[in-house]
Amino acid sequence: MSYIDINCDLGESYGVFKIGNDKEVLKHISSANIACGYHAGDHNVMMETIQMAKKYHVNIGAHPGFPDLSGFGRREMNISTREIYNLTLYQIGALSAFTKVEGVKLVHVKPHGALYNMAAKSRLIADAIAQAVADYDSGLILFGLSGSELINAGNEKGLVTAQEVFADRTYQPDGTLTSRKDPNSMIHDLKFAAKRIIRMIREGKVTTTDGTDISINADTVCIHGDEPVALDFILELKYALTNEKIAIRKSWSER
Amino acid sequence: MSYIDINCDLGESYGVFKIGNDKEVLKHISSANIACGYHAGDHNVMMETIQMAKKYHVNIGAHPGFPDLSGFGRREMNISTREIYNLTLYQIGALSAFTKVEGVKLVHVKPHGALYNMAAKSRLIADAIAQAVADYDSGLILFGLSGSELINAGNEKGLVTAQEVFADRTYQPDGTLTSRKDPNSMIHDLKFAAKRIIRMIREGKVTTTDGTDISINADTVCIHGDEPVALDFILELKYALTNEKIAIRKSWSER
Amino acid sequence: MSYIDINCDLGESYGVFKIGNDKEVLKHISSANIACGYHAGDHNVMMETIQMAKKYHVNIGAHPGFPDLSGFGRREMNISTREIYNLTLYQIGALSAFTKVEGVKLVHVKPHGALYNMAAKSRLIADAIAQAVADYDSGLILFGLSGSELINAGNEKGLVTAQEVFADRTYQPDGTLTSRKDPNSMIHDLKFAAKRIIRMIREGKVTTTDGTDISINADTVCIHGDEPVALDFILELKYALTNEKIAIRKSWSER
Amino acid sequence: MSYIDINCDLGESYGVFKIGNDKEVLKHISSANIACGYHAGDHNVMMETIQMAKKYHVNIGAHPGFPDLSGFGRREMNISTREIYNLTLYQIGALSAFTKVEGVKLVHVKPHGALYNMAAKSRLIADAIAQAVADYDSGLILFGLSGSELINAGNEKGLVTAQEVFADRTYQPDGTLTSRKDPNSMIHDLKFAAKRIIRMIREGKVTTTDGTDISINADTVCIHGDEPVALDFILELKYALTNEKIAIRKSWSER
Repeated sequence: MSYIDINCDLGESYGVFKIGNDKEVLKHISSANIACGYHAGDHNVMMETIQMAKKYHVNIGAHPGFPDLSGFGRREMNISTREIYNLTLYQIGALSAFTKVEGVKLVHVKPHGALYNMAAKSRLIADAIAQAVADYDSGLILFGLSGSELINAGNEKGLVTAQEVFADRTYQPDGTLTSRKDPNSMIHDLKFAAKRIIRMIREGKVTTTDGTDISINADTVCIHGDEPVALDFILELKYALTNEKIAIRKSWSER
Repeated sequence: MSYIDINCDLGESYGVFKIGNDKEVLKHISSANIACGYHAGDHNVMMETIQMAKKYHVNIGAHPGFPDLSGFGRREMNISTREIYNLTLYQIGALSAFTKVEGVKLVHVKPHGALYNMAAKSRLIADAIAQAVADYDSGLILFGLSGSELINAGNEKGLVTAQEVFADRTYQPDGTLTSRKDPNSMIHDLKFAAKRIIRMIREGKVTTTDGTDISINADTVCIHGDEPVALDFILELKYALTNEKIAIRKSWSER
Repeated sequence: MSYIDINCDLGESYGVFKIGNDKEVLKHISSANIACGYHAGDHNVMMETIQMAKKYHVNIGAHPGFPDLSGFGRREMNISTREIYNLTLYQIGALSAFTKVEGVKLVHVKPHGALYNMAAKSRLIADAIAQAVADYDSGLILFGLSGSELINAGNEKGLVTAQEVFADRTYQPDGTLTSRKDPNSMIHDLKFAAKRIIRMIREGKVTTTDGTDISINADTVCIHGDEPVALDFILELKYALTNEKIAIRKSWSER
Repeated sequence: MSYIDINCDLGESYGVFKIGNDKEVLKHISSANIACGYHAGDHNVMMETIQMAKKYHVNIGAHPGFPDLSGFGRREMNISTREIYNLTLYQIGALSAFTKVEGVKLVHVKPHGALYNMAAKSRLIADAIAQAVADYDSGLILFGLSGSELINAGNEKGLVTAQEVFADRTYQPDGTLTSRKDPNSMIHDLKFAAKRIIRMIREGKVTTTDGTDISINADTVCIHGDEPVALDFILELKYALTNEKIAIRKSWSER
């Protein structure tokens, strides 16, 4: 039996500012990446999101980002690696207070936005994040872009890593995601997107923008919860996975 | 042998904004209340302060406050008790990530500023804080104003509590601190202040602003680290305590 | 001919966090109260909202609030009157930079949320706000709860004031709004609400929660733009006003 | 007679967090660049700083920066030029509310920190800032690094520009400042620094780190107010300027 994890960024509301459709999305995914109050989320939202994830038996992860609420953590900031280590720790700790009182496990860590993208390319930034995760709890799973420096850094620190793929994004021949500024960065055909994911899991391959195939490891698929078609997409993907007898991973001990 | 704890609010710098003389103060106190990024402090300052406290074998506590950096957490805010529970948890968790990676123990929690003052009077607010502390770790010691609702709430939740007294502040006949707006709220005579503390420890009594004596429990004395005379005051107090053979508590198991 | 102004709080989005249906609402109102970055709004949203208001010929006002984004400015904060003066000024100035470059007039100022409510009851706070408005530009119109201290303060400073009434809220016998915590604080019947507004304009009277009538001045009606029925309500109200030959005020020189 | 302006970044305190020695520095400089609440400063500090600058007859300028209080606006952020236009406007407007009520003139605008550095090199960013300044008030003087893209952008928009030089920094052969990470970036010898400034004014030349001379325009000299030797440096510079009969410019109409 093959397994795949489906993850989604959740808990991104802030005060009266509501984002996403967390309650519905949680019914269908296996891993929730929960914002920790820096780029999104607040202490109330974190608690509520963890309580919902607990109810639906979804694995809980910290989703640390840059201290940039107005930019939603999507803007690159020139921050020292020492500070990246510290801000990662801070956010993991804050979230784990809520998992602790709710009696659930903190399972993984996935950096957000610009921090995620910078950690994919810069080994120094990747090392800072991976070190913070390993120092906090070496049993945590580190999520990163498939084939990225963050995955390399996590493996070197002895962490279990989860290589992440994107169903709705196109890939460059070098394995990076096509920039969102590029008009053909997104895949809107749900069935086609689901087929690509199946192939990544079954064959470990994906076709890039120039038509060539590259190797890709797929441990977890990222779903975007705040888009109108998010639920449609999840249902389409689950249908395709079921047909292929690929199980959605409920536990990382299933390999 | 009698014991007394000496605590100080530390780690209140934020980015380039520097407050206090933490390194010197840490050489002389037994408990550090470290700001957690809401009213003061940031992830870098938290790490550095914990590393210094570790070096000087000072007990480490979380010092959660209101989300009000511009007001330094000193302004009353009308926040629900549910949110006070959550913001207390968040800040304890964030700080404990740093104690965890540094291999030191989180010993106590003391609310800051307006949150401290409101918790002294309102049992509902006191209960929210005490519940958050107890849910997170029932071995944490809760610091609160001597005789306050926060002490009552902590005791009822089964927490060890530390009743806090102030050497440089005057007391009202009802046991509350004289408001800082009152011209005779502060005591500037260091020797006189030290004598008052000795009497609180030895006799459990303090003379109030109307000249009458009231009973007071003193488990810990608060020192203000950011005032110019802070170090002078600490040295004067330590001298007086030594003369009286009152030991500064290094561990809360010493009773 | 009678006149009434219809105002709505707009520009409350912040970064990726979207609130309201500003574009549709602007087609139907006469005054837009635009958030200034403290409790909601940001520099981009302010610019976009002003450009939209300009397009639909809607009067533009500053909507200053407490520095409390996570609480949306709805939580009472114990802030000095000196600071309230300064924070009002800051926000008016920030917004007026955008009106200036867009070549439109800043017409009015309406405090937001807890600041609005505190200014309705406290003359000291009302004075601080009214003084800031008058010092900045004595031609600005000050919006406040009908019959409130803010209206009194504005009148005393020589400002033109606009007494605000709420169509979807019930009134207490003393002229204050019924607290939102009270189950019968809201009026959900659109036709009934519109009738109450007509009566306030025509007769200067409203029936309170105990069944008695009180006098009330209505210069402007507040519409809530972020609720699902906002547009329905506006259309119902406009229909009722048209039937009664009450014109929506386009300019405050029409009296 | 030759003229030179001496400017200093002021009003950088935030709430209880105090930075600098503004009151003393204001006695000796001719232009104050006042932080506007994004990277430093708050509405109270802005008012107090403007009142002090007014008292000492110092020209007042806005000092807009990135929305990054924890990084003091010194970290590069990947922000769109549209947003840079808007955040510049917002901050100029906010500050000008205080100059307006205090009856003083807003004379100049100087971007802060990373925004200043990025505007020195990127014409697109420089254009966004210059356009915001010109749209707000074409009579404002734009301060920028001598020879930088910001000066070019300002000139092209028709603004009066002031080319800024640094007495305590060394220059590269291409006219840029030596990075602070370089050990020989700073000049600590006050007399030597003063001599360099005199030569920049008299001859329009400065010796770079490789020993060659380059041309440089000096309309204004930046003094750092928050360093311990700030006042010593100002006094040394004033002494040297007086000896050379170079007047400190009180008004930009003196040319």
